[in-house]
Amino acid sequence: MRGQFITLEGGEGVGKSTNLAAVQLWLEQRGIDTLVTREPGGTPLAEEIRQLLLAPRAESVAPLAELLLMFAARAQHIAAAIEPALAAGRWVLCDRFGDATHAYQGGGRRLPTAVIEQLQQLVQAQLSPDLTLLLDLPVAEGLARAGERGELDRFEAEQLDFFNRVRDRYLQLAAAEPQRFAVVDASQPLVQVQADIGAALEQFYESLQ
Amino acid sequence: MRGQFITLEGGEGVGKSTNLAAVQLWLEQRGIDTLVTREPGGTPLAEEIRQLLLAPRAESVAPLAELLLMFAARAQHIAAAIEPALAAGRWVLCDRFGDATHAYQGGGRRLPTAVIEQLQQLVQAQLSPDLTLLLDLPVAEGLARAGERGELDRFEAEQLDFFNRVRDRYLQLAAAEPQRFAVVDASQPLVQVQADIGAALEQFYESLQ
Repeated sequence: MRGQFITLEGGEGVGKSTNLAAVQLWLEQRGIDTLVTREPGGTPLAEEIRQLLLAPRAESVAPLAELLLMFAARAQHIAAAIEPALAAGRWVLCDRFGDATHAYQGGGRRLPTAVIEQLQQLVQAQLSPDLTLLLDLPVAEGLARAGERGELDRFEAEQLDFFNRVRDRYLQLAAAEPQRFAVVDASQPLVQVQADIGAALEQFYESLQ
Repeated sequence: MRGQFITLEGGEGVGKSTNLAAVQLWLEQRGIDTLVTREPGGTPLAEEIRQLLLAPRAESVAPLAELLLMFAARAQHIAAAIEPALAAGRWVLCDRFGDATHAYQGGGRRLPTAVIEQLQQLVQAQLSPDLTLLLDLPVAEGLARAGERGELDRFEAEQLDFFNRVRDRYLQLAAAEPQRFAVVDASQPLVQVQADIGAALEQFYESLQ
C-alpha cells in the first residue's frame, strides 16, 4: 500500500522546525515508518540547489530563474526520494512543498499562477499532498521570532510587504482546498499549537481506516 | 539599434573554444562591441548552476531536474546579461544556447520535444539567435579529441549512443532552420574550418546592411 504524503507549510518564524519534530514523534508513536525531508532540498543535488537559492548575493536573481531552480530541486527530490518512499509504503513528511512555491514565488515574487501551475503539471502532476498542515501567524510576529536567529537568508531578508503576500497566498490556498489543509493558529501557546496539530493528524489518520 | 545574437553549437571535441576565439576576432576586426558568454553560465549564479550540472556525482540526476536547471541558468543569463547587452546595441556571442538543450536533453536524454518547447516559450519566447554556427564532426572523432583533455564532466562521461543522438538532433535542428544555421564541417583542417566560419559571418553581416 502506497504511503501518505504530509506537508508542513508556513511563513518565517511560525515554528516549523519545532512542530515538524512533533509531527514526526506523533507518527513514530503509531509505528509509521516515515521519511522526514524538506524543500528545497532532500537529496544531495537538491540541497546544493537550496544553497544557491538561499545564499544572499549581490546579483539580482530573476524571479523566473528562482522559480525554475525550485522546480529543478523538486523534480530531483520527487524522483530520488519522495516517490520511491511512497511507493515502498513509507509515509513522507516534508517541510514545505508546492504550496510554498505558490506562496513565495507566486504571492511574494508576483509570478503568474498560470506559470506555476504549468510547471507543477510538468514536475508534480501525479503528486499532491494528502494532508497539509499550515502554521499561520501574523507576519510581524513571525518576523520577530525569525529575527532572533541571527543572519538572514535571501528570503528572510525580504520586506514586510513580501511576507504579507506570502501569508495571504497561503491562506487563499487553504481556503480553496479545505479538505487537504488544516490551518493551525501558530500564535497560540506551543502546547495548544501541538494539540491542534495532533487533532488534525488524528482526524486524517482515522479518515484512512 | 538592437544588437545581433550569434550562437556557436556542437558536440564534444568539435573545437568550439578555438573557433569561438576566431569568431570573436572577426567581430573585433569589424569594430563590433560584443559580449562573449556561454551556457550554462554567463552570470555568477548561472555559473554556479553550471557547476551543479557538470559535476560528476554518485546521485543519478533526473533528466527533468537537469532540464529545469538548464532553463533556470538560461532565465538568469537572459535577464542579467544577454538582454541588457542586446538592448544596448552590443552583439552577443554565446557558446551554446537553446539548440544545445534540444540536442543534449532532447536527443541525448530523450526528453520530449514538447516539454522543451514549453520551457523555451516560458524562458526565451522573445529571444532566438540571429545566426547559429554549428560545428559538426563524426562523434568518434570528437570524443577522441575531447578525451585528450583529461578528466571528464558529467556529460562528457556519457556513452557513444548518447553523443550520436546529440549530433543527430543538432543536424535535424539545422535542417529545419537553414536560414538561421550555418553548418561547418569541423573534420576539415582548422584553417578551412575558420575560412568557412568567416564566410558564414560575412554572409550574415552583409544580410544586415
